[in-house]
Amino acid sequence: MKQLSQAQFEFLQGVFGADKVNSGDSARKLHGRDFSGHPSHLPAVVVWPQETGQISRLLAWAQEEAVPITPWGAGTSTEGNPIPLAGGVVVDMVEMNRVLNLWPQDMQVEVEAGVGFQDLNHSLRHEGLFFPPDPGAWATIGGMIANNASGIRTVKYGMTKDYVQELEVVLPGGRVIDTGNRAHKSSSGYDLARLFVGSEGTLGIVTRAVLRLAGMPEHFLAVVAGFPSTNAACQAVTELIRHGTDPAALELLTPPLARLLNRVNGLDLPESPLLFMEFVGFSARSLEEVLEIAREVCAELGAQGFEAGLGKVNRDRIWSARNAAAETIKQTHAGLEIMITDAAVPMSAYEELIAFSEQQVTGSGQVGYVFGHAGDGNLHLVWMGDPKDPAQWQKLEQANRAIVEKAIDLGGTATGEHGVGMGKSKFMLAEHGASMEVMAQIKDTLDPKGIMNPGKIFPAASTGVHSS
Amino acid sequence: MKQLSQAQFEFLQGVFGADKVNSGDSARKLHGRDFSGHPSHLPAVVVWPQETGQISRLLAWAQEEAVPITPWGAGTSTEGNPIPLAGGVVVDMVEMNRVLNLWPQDMQVEVEAGVGFQDLNHSLRHEGLFFPPDPGAWATIGGMIANNASGIRTVKYGMTKDYVQELEVVLPGGRVIDTGNRAHKSSSGYDLARLFVGSEGTLGIVTRAVLRLAGMPEHFLAVVAGFPSTNAACQAVTELIRHGTDPAALELLTPPLARLLNRVNGLDLPESPLLFMEFVGFSARSLEEVLEIAREVCAELGAQGFEAGLGKVNRDRIWSARNAAAETIKQTHAGLEIMITDAAVPMSAYEELIAFSEQQVTGSGQVGYVFGHAGDGNLHLVWMGDPKDPAQWQKLEQANRAIVEKAIDLGGTATGEHGVGMGKSKFMLAEHGASMEVMAQIKDTLDPKGIMNPGKIFPAASTGVHSS
Repeated sequence: MKQLSQAQFEFLQGVFGADKVNSGDSARKLHGRDFSGHPSHLPAVVVWPQETGQISRLLAWAQEEAVPITPWGAGTSTEGNPIPLAGGVVVDMVEMNRVLNLWPQDMQVEVEAGVGFQDLNHSLRHEGLFFPPDPGAWATIGGMIANNASGIRTVKYGMTKDYVQELEVVLPGGRVIDTGNRAHKSSSGYDLARLFVGSEGTLGIVTRAVLRLAGMPEHFLAVVAGFPSTNAACQAVTELIRHGTDPAALELLTPPLARLLNRVNGLDLPESPLLFMEFVGFSARSLEEVLEIAREVCAELGAQGFEAGLGKVNRDRIWSARNAAAETIKQTHAGLEIMITDAAVPMSAYEELIAFSEQQVTGSGQVGYVFGHAGDGNLHLVWMGDPKDPAQWQKLEQANRAIVEKAIDLGGTATGEHGVGMGKSKFMLAEHGASMEVMAQIKDTLDPKGIMNPGKIFPAASTGVHSS
Repeated sequence: MKQLSQAQFEFLQGVFGADKVNSGDSARKLHGRDFSGHPSHLPAVVVWPQETGQISRLLAWAQEEAVPITPWGAGTSTEGNPIPLAGGVVVDMVEMNRVLNLWPQDMQVEVEAGVGFQDLNHSLRHEGLFFPPDPGAWATIGGMIANNASGIRTVKYGMTKDYVQELEVVLPGGRVIDTGNRAHKSSSGYDLARLFVGSEGTLGIVTRAVLRLAGMPEHFLAVVAGFPSTNAACQAVTELIRHGTDPAALELLTPPLARLLNRVNGLDLPESPLLFMEFVGFSARSLEEVLEIAREVCAELGAQGFEAGLGKVNRDRIWSARNAAAETIKQTHAGLEIMITDAAVPMSAYEELIAFSEQQVTGSGQVGYVFGHAGDGNLHLVWMGDPKDPAQWQKLEQANRAIVEKAIDLGGTATGEHGVGMGKSKFMLAEHGASMEVMAQIKDTLDPKGIMNPGKIFPAASTGVHSS
């Protein structure tokens, strides 16, 4: 692992100030792992930049001295995305957290990369605007850009990349670029902003972003129903979308998770494939129409335990069970680590992926709960296991691999929203084939010494920088 | 201009077949210019590929022999995007026009790049699905991908890049990559598909695409109203969006164009800033609600001549005036060539851009009509002039430059939807600054000999390939 010389340490103190450079054990441990079970790797030092100029000086120096650099947001990722595999410097962005500009008429905001999306939305609450992507856990805008984060409302609102208008990025060597613009649309040259979204800090450090916002809906409709089969639940998803109801969320839960929620939280959910539905609108009347359609669609598909409620309060009540799922799983299996399969497939293949995943859980004999963002064909399978038990952890790895390879065979992707990080790089060649070579060429062009978040996205030796 | 040797010509006949290689004057002239007034440049030869393998052999050979290659769709672009500045080979894609796969449940279709978007939509008419981007003129999917085309319904439906799931691309040297996937969302590596969208054939040739589709709306509402000022019309645009009415189109026409339409087509449009509005919905009732809101918004802003109609027939009747605008301008000034300013700015700056553009028309003393996709802050200023009258054409160029530079100052872009081509490359440094260098690095990495559509997007000497 890359350690720093005294001179290098002093350089960092000179750039960031002594109080913003920390090589103490606790700081390093706090920046050595994320929410996943991926093994911890400690950085040599953690720095807290206050402005872009410091990051530019850092990346000029780091390229010169070949020091590994790993940007850090909230550390809430689930694939080891920000774990500093090669040590070096972790750049914790959380102190660059200002909201710089708000343009209400344009429904746009300019922020520093370290601002938390919840804090951003809190600051927007009186404007009737919000930043829709919501990965669930606390996250910084920079981290969400790095992973192209999304969440349960992607089916209506899209991913982080759909909200990025303009980015300030510091590149290896210290170049600072401002790419994109504030117009609603553009056909002006290559879409570099989109290239950096989802690049997981492997091409540079995003320091500033102009984001699109959405109007905060005033009217809410929540529906939950149990279906006789996964097939029926998936048909309901397709029907609701095709009817133009524009759902804001369509979440599938499989029976074992429904049973767990009933047992632990004293609920009485139907213990069959469950669909949690959310709709938002500009008027209560339009949602009443949607409710009629939802009722018909669910009835035609033999749904049981149909429950619906208009308004925010009912929405939160009905969804509280779904919202509690992740936490309930963790608490029920305290002491175990988490591994999440988040492959995504076209809607027509979702039922097959869910069924295959349920078989993998059963076949592995391990603890795993199958649910997902059904409206996006995005599976979430939360495994709980003990990485210190190699035999057990390997079973999870094997089942995870089988599901991801199945998803790729079905025309899908290894990761719908969690990013590649450490955990998915082994699937990149299978998913992307010759495209990986082009990704690697771009990586090598912008980061010739491979200093940016080394060991992520690319399988070892797929790029010049990684074999060097 | 690059001419071909007999041996090179014979190579092409060997790859494509003698009947698919044409160096005759008429074929070359037909592939020497687009819809704009940009000067014609003739290719040495035109080829009509039938399949990807032929294009792979072509680009392997072209890189070896440093032969310029320019892909060609429908030739309906407006910035000289496909004009073969350096001669060489024009690759006319129109014979690769098959619809390969349709997945109705996934609302996705796989097509060859040469299919026309109208033909695609015609083939989808019984599925209740359509490909929303509509640039107005006839265009191929490949051309629309190359320019990231959009059109009047972008405010609701987005741009071509929002519909690209997966692309097959042939790169210089002959590599064929398949990038992207069919899942609704992904965070798997760099978004290469988005990099190729809008690259105007400067990085490779798109041969196949999996596209997202939208559900064909069944209910339509059209509204037209005249406003006391451009300011009032722009406020109406913002209000309609902020009220959540989700407009499908919001088109602004300025008084001189309204007068022209009235005079030539015997209409009685209010000769004030006009807003053409379209809304679509899943029920007539939801549109009646929207109509109430539109009526209130327009009344509050002092609108005159408010006319509204529900249903497709009324929609087409009310919009016929707007739909006739471009054709009416061309016919009224037959014999002149067209130059279009299509800068875009944030909504809050749109009124200022429109006013500035109206001043430029008046000040230039030339023929120009100001209108635009108001919902996107996208100006369209159609100039009519004679390129063979250098003094006059230069006045248009000067006014165009002033407006584009104003748009960039206002946080916008040189081109909202027409692409850079020949006409806008001179503005790229002003718009993108240091980002241009990164675009050029990517260009040089993927196209080291600069054979792909040379002279486009990049201002001369901004890339290694262009100075070589």
